[in-house]
Amino acid sequence: MGSIVLYMSMSLDGFITGPDDGPGQGLGLNGSRLFRWLDERNTPGPNKDVFDEAMATGAVIAGRRTYENADHWHGDHHDGVPVFVLTHHPPETPPPGSVRFATDGAEDCAAQAKAAAGERNVMVHGAGAAQSLLRAGVLDELELHLVPVLLSQGRRLFDALGPDHIELELTRAIEAPHVTHLHYRVIR
Amino acid sequence: MGSIVLYMSMSLDGFITGPDDGPGQGLGLNGSRLFRWLDERNTPGPNKDVFDEAMATGAVIAGRRTYENADHWHGDHHDGVPVFVLTHHPPETPPPGSVRFATDGAEDCAAQAKAAAGERNVMVHGAGAAQSLLRAGVLDELELHLVPVLLSQGRRLFDALGPDHIELELTRAIEAPHVTHLHYRVIR
Repeated sequence: MGSIVLYMSMSLDGFITGPDDGPGQGLGLNGSRLFRWLDERNTPGPNKDVFDEAMATGAVIAGRRTYENADHWHGDHHDGVPVFVLTHHPPETPPPGSVRFATDGAEDCAAQAKAAAGERNVMVHGAGAAQSLLRAGVLDELELHLVPVLLSQGRRLFDALGPDHIELELTRAIEAPHVTHLHYRVIR
Repeated sequence: MGSIVLYMSMSLDGFITGPDDGPGQGLGLNGSRLFRWLDERNTPGPNKDVFDEAMATGAVIAGRRTYENADHWHGDHHDGVPVFVLTHHPPETPPPGSVRFATDGAEDCAAQAKAAAGERNVMVHGAGAAQSLLRAGVLDELELHLVPVLLSQGRRLFDALGPDHIELELTRAIEAPHVTHLHYRVIR
C-alpha cells in the first residue's frame, strides 16, 4: 500500500497562510507568497517534478477548515480521486463530487484513504489534518516546500501536537527556484 | 566589514528550546535534542565545518534571556571575542569578561558589534536578539541548523516580527548527519 504524505508550502517561520484566512481568502492576506514556486509547475524542472508527484496521489485527506477555505475544490481536488474531509461536525449539505466526510477520527480516516488510494500515496493537506494524523501516529511522510520568507503572521502548520517529540528522518532535499523541497519520514 | 549572522539550531516546527527554559535549564526540557549534531563538532565533516565557521566570528550579539540562561558563558563565549548583550535593563552587577551591555537598541548594538568584529562576521544567538535585529533591519544572514524533529513545545525562534514579510534568499544548503544546515541572506 501507499504512504500517507503531507504536502504543504511553509514559510521558514512555519506559516502556511497569511493572517485572516477564511472562505474567499483561503490563503490569508498575502499568503499567495507561499505558492510562487507553483508558477513553475508546468515548466520542466524540480518544481514540476515535485508537483507532479503530489498530483499522482490516489486520495486526499484534508481538515474541515481547508475544505471550506478551498471552496470544496468544487468537488474534485485532482483527477477525481476521493477526498476525505476529517471532521467531527459534517455539514448537513451532502458533499460534492468525490468528497466524503470522515467522522470517526484520524486513524479511521487514514485507513479509508489508504484503501481508496490502493498502491498510490495519500496526499494530506492543511494544518488541522496534519496535526490530527500526527497525533494519531498515522502520518508516514512529510513533503515540505520550504519558502525563503518570514511571513510573521498567519496559520502555523505545526501546533498543538502534544508534549512528545516526533522524530523525523530527512529522506530527500531538493533545491529549486524559490523553494527548498524537504522530504521527511516519520520515525515510529 | 563582516556580516551579522544568526546561528541557531531549530526544530522543523520552529522551536529553539524545549518548554520551561530558564537559568539552570537553558535549553528547556529535553531541548538538548536540538544539539545532537554538535556531538560531531570535532569530527571532520560538514557539521565540524559549520561549527568552525560559527566559532570564527569576531563578536557575539545575544539577548538578555539567552545571556542569563547560558550562565553568562562565564564571561567568554569563544576565544574572548566581545559579547554584546542587547537589553533595555542591564543588571547592576558589572558584566563578566568580554561581555558588555548594549542599551541603545538593536541598530546601535549591531554597529558596535560590527566595528568590534572588524573583517570577521558577527554571531547572533537567541530568539530575542534575532527578532530585534530583524525588526530593525540589521540582520544580514541566517544559518539555521534545521533538526528533523517536531518538538511541539518550547520557545519559537521567529515570533512577533511585525506584519511585513521578510524576504530571504537561500545561499547554501548542506545535508549533514542529524541536521540540514540552511544559509539565507536577508533581502532588503
